[in-house]
Amino acid sequence: IEASDAERARLLTEDLHEADVGAILEQLDAEQRPALIQLLGDAFDFTALTELDEATRVEILEDLPAETVAEGISELDSDDAVYILEDLDSEEREEILAQMPSIERLALKRSLDYPEDSAGRRMQTEFIAVAPFWTVGQTIDLMRESDDLPESFNEVFVVDPAFRFLGRVPLDRLLRSARPVKMGEIVDEGAQIVEATDELSSVARLFQRYNLISAPVVDESRRLVGIMTIDDAVDVIEEEADADIKRLGGVGDEEVSDRVLSIARSRLPWLCINLCTAILASFVIGLFETELQKMVALAVLMPIVASQGGNAGTQTMTVAVRALATRAIGPHNALRVVGRELVVGCINGLFFACIVAGVAVWRFGIADLGVVIAAAMLVNLIAAALAGILIPLVIHRFKFDPAIASGAFVTTVTDLVGFFSFLGFAALWFGFG
Amino acid sequence: IEASDAERARLLTEDLHEADVGAILEQLDAEQRPALIQLLGDAFDFTALTELDEATRVEILEDLPAETVAEGISELDSDDAVYILEDLDSEEREEILAQMPSIERLALKRSLDYPEDSAGRRMQTEFIAVAPFWTVGQTIDLMRESDDLPESFNEVFVVDPAFRFLGRVPLDRLLRSARPVKMGEIVDEGAQIVEATDELSSVARLFQRYNLISAPVVDESRRLVGIMTIDDAVDVIEEEADADIKRLGGVGDEEVSDRVLSIARSRLPWLCINLCTAILASFVIGLFETELQKMVALAVLMPIVASQGGNAGTQTMTVAVRALATRAIGPHNALRVVGRELVVGCINGLFFACIVAGVAVWRFGIADLGVVIAAAMLVNLIAAALAGILIPLVIHRFKFDPAIASGAFVTTVTDLVGFFSFLGFAALWFGFG
Repeated sequence: IEASDAERARLLTEDLHEADVGAILEQLDAEQRPALIQLLGDAFDFTALTELDEATRVEILEDLPAETVAEGISELDSDDAVYILEDLDSEEREEILAQMPSIERLALKRSLDYPEDSAGRRMQTEFIAVAPFWTVGQTIDLMRESDDLPESFNEVFVVDPAFRFLGRVPLDRLLRSARPVKMGEIVDEGAQIVEATDELSSVARLFQRYNLISAPVVDESRRLVGIMTIDDAVDVIEEEADADIKRLGGVGDEEVSDRVLSIARSRLPWLCINLCTAILASFVIGLFETELQKMVALAVLMPIVASQGGNAGTQTMTVAVRALATRAIGPHNALRVVGRELVVGCINGLFFACIVAGVAVWRFGIADLGVVIAAAMLVNLIAAALAGILIPLVIHRFKFDPAIASGAFVTTVTDLVGFFSFLGFAALWFGFG
Repeated sequence: IEASDAERARLLTEDLHEADVGAILEQLDAEQRPALIQLLGDAFDFTALTELDEATRVEILEDLPAETVAEGISELDSDDAVYILEDLDSEEREEILAQMPSIERLALKRSLDYPEDSAGRRMQTEFIAVAPFWTVGQTIDLMRESDDLPESFNEVFVVDPAFRFLGRVPLDRLLRSARPVKMGEIVDEGAQIVEATDELSSVARLFQRYNLISAPVVDESRRLVGIMTIDDAVDVIEEEADADIKRLGGVGDEEVSDRVLSIARSRLPWLCINLCTAILASFVIGLFETELQKMVALAVLMPIVASQGGNAGTQTMTVAVRALATRAIGPHNALRVVGRELVVGCINGLFFACIVAGVAVWRFGIADLGVVIAAAMLVNLIAAALAGILIPLVIHRFKFDPAIASGAFVTTVTDLVGFFSFLGFAALWFGFG
């Protein structure tokens, strides 16, 4: 297909949805991607680029001439255009913007001026706004006659002469009203409003909470500047959950298309932190060298206590981090949740204390060893429960993201407490040294 | 407020969105919730119940008389009604259904007959469908005059005489067409269709991929039976990501509102599996009792190798599980991804081998110990990379959910390989025994 057969390529992609074109681009080799886009010319819908990984997208855009990109982008809804442009470095962005018609350039620049991850970045600046004294009939006629409409829309906005947002009229309500009715009479004033500087993650929560399909975006003086649509909110929700999962797993913002070296580098910090934890734990073990020498059984059993604590701590932490992210834990129930985790820790601690004591006695035939390991297990599972819930809460309190840092702290606590309590109890009980 | 002052309660909740009413219910004590709902009577919108945790919702419904519930539910859109009913046990469900008008009862029963987690369960059965020979004007008049319309809608469907789906007409297109135009002329036939038996998770992916706002749901004979809307898809996407996070963290489907005992129980399986892993690892250590006795340094250092491997494995696994869930890894790139992880494992393995060798030599002053631990670290990080990517791929291949089981297998591998390689290399190198 890549034999420069423009006609055939065009025919093949003509009926495809942009998401499918995006998938095709992803399957191609790096050099073939810009080639295909140039081959397709006007027939290529740049929306397809929004479906690609960031790394792949930037690569393609760097290889295409600025004019081609400028032309392609000016046909998009503004939110997609911004999405494509925002990952580029500023030099290239300027070059592309310079080639665009001035009205669109200004709109895009205004969007790009909002901070990253704010609603202003992802809003669509194409929308329909009318005055409250317009009638339903006038509004419908406007929509029938005007060419300069958004690609698709579900509501019309009502604004005052200063373009301040007054309310929204969903299309179904518009359709069901008689033509002479004034827009001001059927307007829904209770709409949820988004400020352009709001963080995308809280906007996404708003969409989810109120089951919104779109929401008006206003600037500081409540003037209507754009709309946020649910598809952007869905992407944000997914990205957020994705980021949470990856942070809990100790990996950065990596994607499957990233290069080997950047992946290796992005995983290093977490592994380095873990190494420090592990070395710290090994120092704790080192404190008990004499005891270990006298009773090898301790060396054999000690990882069990630490590992079980690490897992229990991770469980509690996972629940806590997720609950914080979805706002299911707040000041009103934090104390209750901590108490509950403590009880769960005690229950599971007692349960596993019995099991592990049995295993130890059966394996080494020393009854006292069972007592020691049981006590250590109980202590460590309680420590795990407290660390698992308190560490995320404290990190969250200080406005950091609990998903990033909690894991390292929690396993540090459970490792240290695990080794120290087991070897310490053993030292006390058997009176070595 | 709970002093049975119905008038005041009604006034206070009147202007609130159902999501906010839901939030209020959540803050109340368990006994107060049904009391408030009965107090509000007709003024209570049962949609608020869909915003609650499953456990809380079931509790409330069990405490309310069946008639009240039946009355409240018959006013909802069918997808919300099904959502509320599906968690109840079948006896209570029957009791409530028996109190409902027969048309609605049949519609709900049909939805409930579809398997859980299928599109049929979450579809809305209220929609507008017209014949292709209707004109735009007739359709608009129908919408103006009919009372029996969905609460809100964004499109009209076109069906043939057998009610088979032909296409959809978005409201904006309807509005922009002249009244005499036939619906058949402006219909969009390329719409993405959902089958009622499709799994919700794949439906949610479809919505996300094609940025859909709603999609028609058809039965086996392509008859239109309902519509899926984006708000349900958003919930599914969020639930899925949530489930992934929790499974990776080794916790079941627990929610913040669950009771202590059910939480403790739901976390047990994972901790039991981990205990087996840990005991297995301790047996491996037990094989080398003689070596440990002769050189305590081994006991002090061995957790470092195992822990570092566990973390690296978890990193790789997290990326793999997420990529499988979002379909970013498929047959076309699986081999490349495995190769890449292997290279990343080697790079990080070499890096940490050097560091840890330095630490070991500095701590114990035995150069040979550095060689042994470096070799073990390299081996274990490579094993971690392979386990982290291959185990999820294999589990996924056999149609299981990689998020549930991968963690246990991966840490088992890294623990066993970590202890065995370190102690084994030591035994060989120092020629003990």
